[in-house]
Amino acid sequence: MTTKQRASAAPYAYEGLDRVIHERARLSVLTSLLTHPKGLTFNDLKQLCALTDGNLSRHLKVLEHAKLVEIIKGNDQNRPQTLCRITATGRKKYMQYLTTLEQVVRDAAKGAKNAPDLTLLRKLAPAEG
Amino acid sequence: MTTKQRASAAPYAYEGLDRVIHERARLSVLTSLLTHPKGLTFNDLKQLCALTDGNLSRHLKVLEHAKLVEIIKGNDQNRPQTLCRITATGRKKYMQYLTTLEQVVRDAAKGAKNAPDLTLLRKLAPAEG
Repeated sequence: MTTKQRASAAPYAYEGLDRVIHERARLSVLTSLLTHPKGLTFNDLKQLCALTDGNLSRHLKVLEHAKLVEIIKGNDQNRPQTLCRITATGRKKYMQYLTTLEQVVRDAAKGAKNAPDLTLLRKLAPAEG
Repeated sequence: MTTKQRASAAPYAYEGLDRVIHERARLSVLTSLLTHPKGLTFNDLKQLCALTDGNLSRHLKVLEHAKLVEIIKGNDQNRPQTLCRITATGRKKYMQYLTTLEQVVRDAAKGAKNAPDLTLLRKLAPAEG
């Protein structure tokens, strides 16, 4: 079965949502790095993504292993500094991922438009949640 | 710290990406159900999302436990049939999730626009991936 046939049989499978990128913390890190092509320090990333040292380290390792980011160890005024940067591969894969993400948003927007009147539903059904 | 202050300090944290919804298979299931407000049978969902019986069952349980979907057991021409439907809570939470997802897409689009010339980068750096 070709990719196209699979997509038409399973239009909501969203196979393009690469799990390495889709995980929330890694999506945060990659989006930060995409918008800062010159790179970000470990501490900047930690703050921008609201991650702990341990969590950021763990996710950076996964991203580095997948060759989506590169970690450059260096010094800034004699203090050790870690610079993180998205690679060309990372950028390319992120853009592929984004195509599917945009599809999800489009599908959902279409679904939301066809929504039944929620006010009416709430009157008919017992309160949920 | 208020939510607004947190967001400005960590603009890429994307706290609105509820992990119950964000997981790829569950995002598939919920988007299918959002676009089919009358509900879908277990078999329809399986096909639309390209999931196995076991995977779909497992994820439906998580979604049902979170009160995002409801599972209705019934019969169709004397054969047992399971109907899955998104709840009012599910629809509300999905729409909240969608707001953050749209923010990711906007941030990424902004980042992609500021991208350095990839052709040039490829000439300068050794091939990756």
